[in-house]
Amino acid sequence: MTCYLDGRLVPEDRATVSVRDRGFRYGDAIYETVRLYDGAIDAWPAHAARLERSLAALGIAIERTPADLRAAIRATALANDARDGAARLSITRGADSGRLTPTESDPTVVVTATPLDRGGLGAEWPEFASAVIVDRQRIPDAARPSHAKVAASVTDVLARREARDRGADEALLQDATGRVVEGATSNLFVVRSDQVVTPPLAGPILPGVTRQQVCDLCADLGLDLLTRAPTPEECRDADEAFLTNATQAIRPIDRIDDRPIEAPGPITRRLARAFDAGIEARHYRSED
Amino acid sequence: MTCYLDGRLVPEDRATVSVRDRGFRYGDAIYETVRLYDGAIDAWPAHAARLERSLAALGIAIERTPADLRAAIRATALANDARDGAARLSITRGADSGRLTPTESDPTVVVTATPLDRGGLGAEWPEFASAVIVDRQRIPDAARPSHAKVAASVTDVLARREARDRGADEALLQDATGRVVEGATSNLFVVRSDQVVTPPLAGPILPGVTRQQVCDLCADLGLDLLTRAPTPEECRDADEAFLTNATQAIRPIDRIDDRPIEAPGPITRRLARAFDAGIEARHYRSED
Repeated sequence: MTCYLDGRLVPEDRATVSVRDRGFRYGDAIYETVRLYDGAIDAWPAHAARLERSLAALGIAIERTPADLRAAIRATALANDARDGAARLSITRGADSGRLTPTESDPTVVVTATPLDRGGLGAEWPEFASAVIVDRQRIPDAARPSHAKVAASVTDVLARREARDRGADEALLQDATGRVVEGATSNLFVVRSDQVVTPPLAGPILPGVTRQQVCDLCADLGLDLLTRAPTPEECRDADEAFLTNATQAIRPIDRIDDRPIEAPGPITRRLARAFDAGIEARHYRSED
Repeated sequence: MTCYLDGRLVPEDRATVSVRDRGFRYGDAIYETVRLYDGAIDAWPAHAARLERSLAALGIAIERTPADLRAAIRATALANDARDGAARLSITRGADSGRLTPTESDPTVVVTATPLDRGGLGAEWPEFASAVIVDRQRIPDAARPSHAKVAASVTDVLARREARDRGADEALLQDATGRVVEGATSNLFVVRSDQVVTPPLAGPILPGVTRQQVCDLCADLGLDLLTRAPTPEECRDADEAFLTNATQAIRPIDRIDDRPIEAPGPITRRLARAFDAGIEARHYRSED
């Protein structure tokens, strides 16, 4: 694998950072995961806007422009045969004095990329996801800004360990009131009585770019969309359920805890078809 | 500076880790900060026990024994002229598949060390700490195990930025009920009407080794100790206040928010004198 590190493409064994880098020492870093189709980043303006909000939330200032970062992502994808693929851009606060209080430092920028099949309706879904509702709570906004895509992910790692031990793919985390708010690396949608339900941005959730695309598609398709965090029981009783993130787009859920769920259900199928048509129009169809 | 990295002492410019290390990628790591006096680690059994609890909380398994880790810390300290000093031992889950769900991986072990004056009564306190009570809350135990010394510290970094911007050295964080629970890198003690007050381990606090040493000294000195998280008003109204951690031992607070506090007050002085006598007896006084 070839990585981008601070302005250069380097082979993986030379893609290393100092143990004094605050990304390593404190998890003091943010990231974005993007999907590339035919060499182009899907929804880059939305990712760039969230990246800027994440950097602002942590007070990390970088000199590179969004256009520089976009070029770095595309170059890394090309170098890894990932014109159809996913890339992760990480920006840390860099190395500094070694004390917790941040001082002036030069941010570290890393990009990695992996080839991926296009997925969606172009192929079969590689697999449905099984999910469990874990006890581990999402970190509340008062403790850490929920809307920032912070690299430090111990809560999600622990949630995923529990999911793995319970034989599931994804862990669904709750807020302090016991409502289900999101997956460890995904946003959650459930369908109940023809109504699409997803937790609101006002709660402790990451504002997923794919989540917003799906919300927009609900409007386009005239589907009834309710932004409300469901209870665990409402999740288990759902007619349909699916996860969204940039890498997997729309991934149907076929089980929550011990309850099987029809996957993909008819509304999930409609949304996935519309999502796929959008990808086709934005990235593969000639404009002429 | 010379660092210990996975079994070897290396110069700082070669102390690097892969960008795929989970410590860098996810902040998926724990650490211990220890104080050395005359080449020996103070309270090593307590640090080793907490380290083991931190590793267990994250499910990180290492082959190295506590004796190996202790030897690594001492070797790093010697190599850095830090027989009197502080060292930080970090253990990450290591590099693996690149997915969030942890798989088998080989942990990364890093030690850094810095010389420090002995401090305490042997010297003057280098400085008193000013503190502010910040809005940022400590991460609740339900979201991340409070008793594990997790490397990922974005909450504390943000709290320290706020403290810095308000002209203070340390940020005091609250729990969800608005009680003050600890500093970004320290435990908090206040003295009110001759009673020593410190937040209880049942709350979302890190069980500091120095905190426990000070609690034990209260018993030795016949001081009244109340484990209860104070309100912000009780902190600002305190007769005395101090912070504890392994590096700084007992550090008097001379201001909380806009209220000046006598520093060091008489009880702080008694505790610091007793703490210093303990260091003297454990590390500097000949046993013969």
